[in-house]
Amino acid sequence: MSGSRVSRVSRVEVTPVAFRDPPLLNVVGVHQPFALRAVVQVHTDSGSVGLGETYADDTHLARLEAVASALPGLDVYDLHALRRTVIRVLGAETGGAGASFGGMLDVSSALETVMSPFEVALLDLQGKELGRPVSDLLGGRGRDEVPFSAYLFHKWAGHPGQESDDWGEATTPDQLVAQAQRMVDDYGFTAIKLKGGVFEPAHEVETMRALAEAFPHHKLRIDPNGAWTVPTSVRVARELDGVLEYLEDPTPGIAGMAEVARQVDVPLATNMCVIAFEHLKPAVLADAVQVVLSDHHLWGGLRQSALLGGIAQTFGMGLSMHSNSHLGISLAAMVQLAAATPNLTYACDTHYPWKTEDLVVPGTLEFKDGSVQVPDGPGLGVELDGDALGRLHEQYLRCGQRGREDTAYMRSVVPGFTPNTGRW
Amino acid sequence: MSGSRVSRVSRVEVTPVAFRDPPLLNVVGVHQPFALRAVVQVHTDSGSVGLGETYADDTHLARLEAVASALPGLDVYDLHALRRTVIRVLGAETGGAGASFGGMLDVSSALETVMSPFEVALLDLQGKELGRPVSDLLGGRGRDEVPFSAYLFHKWAGHPGQESDDWGEATTPDQLVAQAQRMVDDYGFTAIKLKGGVFEPAHEVETMRALAEAFPHHKLRIDPNGAWTVPTSVRVARELDGVLEYLEDPTPGIAGMAEVARQVDVPLATNMCVIAFEHLKPAVLADAVQVVLSDHHLWGGLRQSALLGGIAQTFGMGLSMHSNSHLGISLAAMVQLAAATPNLTYACDTHYPWKTEDLVVPGTLEFKDGSVQVPDGPGLGVELDGDALGRLHEQYLRCGQRGREDTAYMRSVVPGFTPNTGRW
Repeated sequence: MSGSRVSRVSRVEVTPVAFRDPPLLNVVGVHQPFALRAVVQVHTDSGSVGLGETYADDTHLARLEAVASALPGLDVYDLHALRRTVIRVLGAETGGAGASFGGMLDVSSALETVMSPFEVALLDLQGKELGRPVSDLLGGRGRDEVPFSAYLFHKWAGHPGQESDDWGEATTPDQLVAQAQRMVDDYGFTAIKLKGGVFEPAHEVETMRALAEAFPHHKLRIDPNGAWTVPTSVRVARELDGVLEYLEDPTPGIAGMAEVARQVDVPLATNMCVIAFEHLKPAVLADAVQVVLSDHHLWGGLRQSALLGGIAQTFGMGLSMHSNSHLGISLAAMVQLAAATPNLTYACDTHYPWKTEDLVVPGTLEFKDGSVQVPDGPGLGVELDGDALGRLHEQYLRCGQRGREDTAYMRSVVPGFTPNTGRW
Repeated sequence: MSGSRVSRVSRVEVTPVAFRDPPLLNVVGVHQPFALRAVVQVHTDSGSVGLGETYADDTHLARLEAVASALPGLDVYDLHALRRTVIRVLGAETGGAGASFGGMLDVSSALETVMSPFEVALLDLQGKELGRPVSDLLGGRGRDEVPFSAYLFHKWAGHPGQESDDWGEATTPDQLVAQAQRMVDDYGFTAIKLKGGVFEPAHEVETMRALAEAFPHHKLRIDPNGAWTVPTSVRVARELDGVLEYLEDPTPGIAGMAEVARQVDVPLATNMCVIAFEHLKPAVLADAVQVVLSDHHLWGGLRQSALLGGIAQTFGMGLSMHSNSHLGISLAAMVQLAAATPNLTYACDTHYPWKTEDLVVPGTLEFKDGSVQVPDGPGLGVELDGDALGRLHEQYLRCGQRGREDTAYMRSVVPGFTPNTGRW
């Protein structure tokens, strides 16, 4: 038995990075040539470094920097003090997330999004100092492998003015089946999700049927990001009866989702109408969703996401996991969280196969049979590759992007484009 | 940074103890001459010992012993494996809590009550090996002091056939005011709770008014443990308008509480109709309670109780803490939990002032101004006094009690007594 030890934050680095991203289509437009992320490194007076990863829109970055400069002296176990610091630093500036999510999500407060990378980094530090994986700090490793889902996107062959990427165009059912086949071959995924809301529902229904025919033993999902009206959502759900594991965000808002839920049998999932703790009570009262997608970047970190998991279990909702374009630090955090959350029984989303660059030392997070083995090492289980971080930061400086602007980018190619939200 | 370490359980001791308890009156009868508790000591292969405390009714003890014998080899961080072990060991025998709570609570599964002392002991071990207080493992110490409430009881002067104890009789308003005065003088409490349901409501209303007059700046509560009908609850709530901080369990059941809640302004609290995760959704849907009393002995340990705290916050319910007769290990666990739960804003219940014996080394848990300072030491922050444990175990062996039988004990004095539940 040892006496009490206190490690304190000595300094914090926030490094924006950019990594190449294919032209993936969604309800609000198309992914730009680079996805932005911010890497948070929390250093302690005992010489450890904890890692976090988050969005890197300009407004968000400025808030991260402000919090970073207020953290020296913080006890790495004092997550309450971290929260109080974030609240104090944000002051009256908490309105809006400061990360645009391409315009798909309406986040009313920046508190949780700003908290998240610092909380993850402190848990990484706790685990490193303790010599235990972060999952042990979240209640223990409930499993050794975390299953992920293939995440299919409609896409252009390449970014405008560039050659085709090696995924090529994907707009037809056949092309999506080919995309799925490559992901399944390469990663072993046993669940497949299609990002919908890009084409008319009949076209996307046809694609889902083609996927069901090609992958009769895979779990299938479609997520049109609220592109459909309530009647269309009900009609599509019935057309896809027996095809879907769940139907994600067919229509916007808790009221609309509840109306759909009353009329269909397939479970409705969401990462749009329930994205903060304040949305849970209205969603439960309306019986609007049957599956909630957690996302530690959005919900304030790993402990808050574990709380969301406990709430889902308590109120009889299923639990899955959402993904934005991300790098290896986020994947490690997602894996640690999922390992400690036994009621997260759905395969998690990940954009991982779409990226061609990373900034963690390879080797600890590999996909096998669609799952990632939970790292045995301390903390998150990943190590930052300083050279790669430098390269991706240089790329950020050069790329000119300073926020996520899917709609504006789409308009540069398709003038007059407006988001498909609620369109059909 | 160190490599991964694993401490494993080597053996577990479960020791039933008995400590003297005054004849405190409640809705189902009267406290027997001894209160029973079980002390759980979890030993590791690295030589540490973790402590837990729970009920000691015979059925519960047998289950604790069965789990204890299945734990050697368990990684002290693997709380999921602990849960799986408890489930496996209980098998089909999970019906009923195995601890009678004097007949006041209807617990449908023993899972959480059996989990609790082992979970607390494992967290104590984690904290000891880490050199940090348990509150740090629950998200950090949100405060340095945890306020408790004076817990007044109607009581006989002494147990039948024995001399008066030094508290003496308390049945009249004046006697309860005197009891409160002594507790406030000795401990500095700023909140006062009366255990009601013993006399007719008019008498207890009179007592609450006398307390309000004597302690105009204290927060006041009454808990009749469901002794009243819905109309009586509404009438009493109105008679005590402006007097109460909250009204605890005036009437039995979620439906009854919801009916009362619709008609009164005072917040309704409960430790009777919401005592398990399965009760939360119906209570939220019915808007039955405004304050939930957590209790780590009943809810499966400290992490599950922290989850309850997060649920209360998310669903707009206040959070307080329940107590049964307990010793210092439980008090330490309650303090660590409350320290890590900032939304636990109500002063916690404790029976602590009623006991005259303990089994922890004195000095780390002292009341000042109604609060207990959170111990700085590792783990729970308390140490077992082996001699005291032996004495209280001997007392258990001699006392003849093997369960909590408030009603039977009352009947031995007042033949034909039946519980007052829903009586008035």
